[in-house]
Amino acid sequence: MKPLTVDLGQRSYPIIVGRGLLGGDLDLTQYVAGEDCLVVTNDTVAPLYLDLVLENLAGKTAESISLPDGEQYKTVATMQSILDRLVDIGANRDTTVVALGGGVVGDIAGFAAACYMRGVAFLQVPTTLLAQVDSSVGGKTGVNHDKGKNLIGAFHQPRAVLIDTDTLKTLPARELRAGLAEVIKYGAIADVAFFDWLEQDIVSLRALDPEALRTAILRSCELKAEVVAEDEREAGRRAILNFGHTFGHAIEHCQGYGEWLHGEAVAAGMLMAAELSGIDDDEKDRLQRLIHAAGLPTNPPKAGSQALLAAMGMDKKVIGKKIRFVLLRCLGEAYVSSEYDATRLQKVLAAAD
Amino acid sequence: MKPLTVDLGQRSYPIIVGRGLLGGDLDLTQYVAGEDCLVVTNDTVAPLYLDLVLENLAGKTAESISLPDGEQYKTVATMQSILDRLVDIGANRDTTVVALGGGVVGDIAGFAAACYMRGVAFLQVPTTLLAQVDSSVGGKTGVNHDKGKNLIGAFHQPRAVLIDTDTLKTLPARELRAGLAEVIKYGAIADVAFFDWLEQDIVSLRALDPEALRTAILRSCELKAEVVAEDEREAGRRAILNFGHTFGHAIEHCQGYGEWLHGEAVAAGMLMAAELSGIDDDEKDRLQRLIHAAGLPTNPPKAGSQALLAAMGMDKKVIGKKIRFVLLRCLGEAYVSSEYDATRLQKVLAAAD
Repeated sequence: MKPLTVDLGQRSYPIIVGRGLLGGDLDLTQYVAGEDCLVVTNDTVAPLYLDLVLENLAGKTAESISLPDGEQYKTVATMQSILDRLVDIGANRDTTVVALGGGVVGDIAGFAAACYMRGVAFLQVPTTLLAQVDSSVGGKTGVNHDKGKNLIGAFHQPRAVLIDTDTLKTLPARELRAGLAEVIKYGAIADVAFFDWLEQDIVSLRALDPEALRTAILRSCELKAEVVAEDEREAGRRAILNFGHTFGHAIEHCQGYGEWLHGEAVAAGMLMAAELSGIDDDEKDRLQRLIHAAGLPTNPPKAGSQALLAAMGMDKKVIGKKIRFVLLRCLGEAYVSSEYDATRLQKVLAAAD
Repeated sequence: MKPLTVDLGQRSYPIIVGRGLLGGDLDLTQYVAGEDCLVVTNDTVAPLYLDLVLENLAGKTAESISLPDGEQYKTVATMQSILDRLVDIGANRDTTVVALGGGVVGDIAGFAAACYMRGVAFLQVPTTLLAQVDSSVGGKTGVNHDKGKNLIGAFHQPRAVLIDTDTLKTLPARELRAGLAEVIKYGAIADVAFFDWLEQDIVSLRALDPEALRTAILRSCELKAEVVAEDEREAGRRAILNFGHTFGHAIEHCQGYGEWLHGEAVAAGMLMAAELSGIDDDEKDRLQRLIHAAGLPTNPPKAGSQALLAAMGMDKKVIGKKIRFVLLRCLGEAYVSSEYDATRLQKVLAAAD
């Protein structure tokens, strides 16, 4: 349980990765700001881990709310149900919101914590691989708008990210694979040695080998923490974390949220972005093989190139109406640019026709 | 047009007070972050000043949205109508939200700006005295919840606060008086010399004497800017700005928002807080006379002491379930405390029975 730190001055916080944390190997109450907390979870995670967490939190007053499960519920309305619950339990500025679940739960619960009384403390207790390696770290919270993903939200850093890798045992295999997309992303954008390691250990990861999982999660969080510490509000470098996401969001948008998992869309999106980058065929092939070995899609769905383009016009990463992409110089090195080969973009998008 | 600054490091911003600013004496486009902006106003202010502002902003792409007027519309639903409009006009991270109106418009528009794409730039162009001396400065944004005022919101600082005192000519007299409550507050909590000046000049202020208005607004903003710079997120000292507000919010809550104006409730609330403080009768009388001279209520409505107390149990300023009040040591010196005379509190609240 070596603690990693996201270094943000006064708002720094630890990321703790280990087994059996929820079951009592870690005392969760030490991270609760005041005397009471609201555990936000969903209908899938609640039967598995809610009792465990409430028992762990027994030293504090702990209430809970369970949301319907699914990206389609990542809305202002769901967020407001959390706010209503906070009001009902008489939550005050010292109340802590605990997000127990995947990325959707973390994003909504974090946004509710950001808005309640203009900001109360919150804890991330991610139970999916995607949330453990990506969305729980860095303070991005929010909900979707009909017209675009995460259009409404806030930067609100958690007090701690507590990752119990045992929770992955109950995660559906498809969601584990989706989480691997983000793990692969870190290798592709920032650490070719990690990419090498993933090529070797992808089978162990899919088989839930505890040591392999621990290594993958720790290194992913470490890389993310470095980038976030450097550029918390995504004024610059942090945008590289969106590698594959401009295409990925467009895929999700065209398919309707929930059809493709986020990680699946990002997997196909990373290959599209690699193609647009014009890196060596050899490196492109390595990325493709690794994504395939992770059990993830290597092609976009047949959503239509025009539909994808239109969806990208509404993407958050559009600055001054010009599309900016995260591109690769080579495996392990990403950059952000609006200088790209338009013909190549058309070719990349044509894969969706 | 001497510019005052709210000193918050990288997020510092100017407060500009003058006549004729909207009509062209100030080029508003210099404060717009990118190339486009959305002016948020309401149905009362739009016919008076929207054309003037859009003309001033002609060098940029400027769209507008007009909200229904009134505190009862300060809701998540209204905020969402602004977000929808931002999506419809294809707003991006460089878009600027311009709040043109009173405190309600500023609070909702600022909250929408805080949440859209996790935060875009916004400008405060307050047109009521209350907004000019209080709500437009300091970055508090938000909306009401059925169960409490400003329960949902964000800290989001504007890029500038542009105060055209000419707009007060069209302000209903009752709202001007309500704004004077906050002006009086600054004298009471932090500057007895300013309080003295107000005692002399209250008649000129009510008569809209331009020089008196300018002095009152500048000094109020200056005092607020000092407090905010010291404690942006209200961890401590900033709470003194809530003098009269714990009682005031309870009054508003019991009467239903919109019955009493915020400033009227604060006026009665300040006298209740002064009473609870146990300051000299002589100073209490001075405060009462000044509030009366400003044309403001010196007694709470007959809402019932129990109802007020219950409403205060849900107030944002409750920490660890214990009520904290802003009290006066003497005129010009406020402090925050949860040590108060319970018998005196009962007596104070009995005025509402």
